[in-house]
Amino acid sequence: MDIHSYMTGLTEGEGCFCISFTQRKKLNTGIEVRPSFSISQNEKNLELLKRVRQCFDCGGIRYSSQDRNYKFEVRSIDDLIKIIIPHFEKYPLIGAKAVDFEKFAQICWMMRSNLHRNKEGLIKIIDLAYQINYGKRKYSKEELLRHMVR
Amino acid sequence: MDIHSYMTGLTEGEGCFCISFTQRKKLNTGIEVRPSFSISQNEKNLELLKRVRQCFDCGGIRYSSQDRNYKFEVRSIDDLIKIIIPHFEKYPLIGAKAVDFEKFAQICWMMRSNLHRNKEGLIKIIDLAYQINYGKRKYSKEELLRHMVR
Repeated sequence: MDIHSYMTGLTEGEGCFCISFTQRKKLNTGIEVRPSFSISQNEKNLELLKRVRQCFDCGGIRYSSQDRNYKFEVRSIDDLIKIIIPHFEKYPLIGAKAVDFEKFAQICWMMRSNLHRNKEGLIKIIDLAYQINYGKRKYSKEELLRHMVR
Repeated sequence: MDIHSYMTGLTEGEGCFCISFTQRKKLNTGIEVRPSFSISQNEKNLELLKRVRQCFDCGGIRYSSQDRNYKFEVRSIDDLIKIIIPHFEKYPLIGAKAVDFEKFAQICWMMRSNLHRNKEGLIKIIDLAYQINYGKRKYSKEELLRHMVR
């Protein structure tokens, strides 16, 4: 078995490429951008998540008592750029999640170039992020844009 | 990428090893046993399921208007024994679903030996099947056993 291809298959079903936004008045733009790659599993599957962490060799595992789930999560932009994104370029997703990944990777690269620190870059990032299939968001895109420091 | 390892990873998250039971008065035991391996996906992921079907080269895809989901499903005991079970022996599951698979495979082999056609065999099959994590069942194990022809 090829464990790396397995991880892509697991991600196709259970993985999440997420970009979250938080109001931060101290930042120039007023908005912090936080990308994360995560895989959540029921508590009986903690051992599986340990294998996931071992395979990617980055990120951490935390417990959400709210969902009674464990979550493997990579938040470091360095690890995302150097480990997670190259993994999914070498072992590509096949289904609808491949489109989410492309947008997620584009946002990470934009952040690596510090484009999220100016208004024009942040608007592009927000636009891409809201195209990712992510379930319910706290703010609509329009509300978030209104929170930007002009 | 190794597509077979990918399929095991996808199954770890999205696959279902299911044994369902139906009352059939014409059968000696009064109960029909139907094993199936399936992967369900939202309708936007139909292309992914076509790749799954292509990879396993058996089973079919059907649409459930109730769930608005497509389901790849293998019901033939021949295909389960010759294709699906050998796949997961060669490319094994890692997480909690591995336990479900072991019980599922054991039931399929028992059926191949026609053990489901007599009372003792069927009781063992029902016992194993109810250990598989399967969500809500129509009958409790005790109700099902009461439906057996004595």
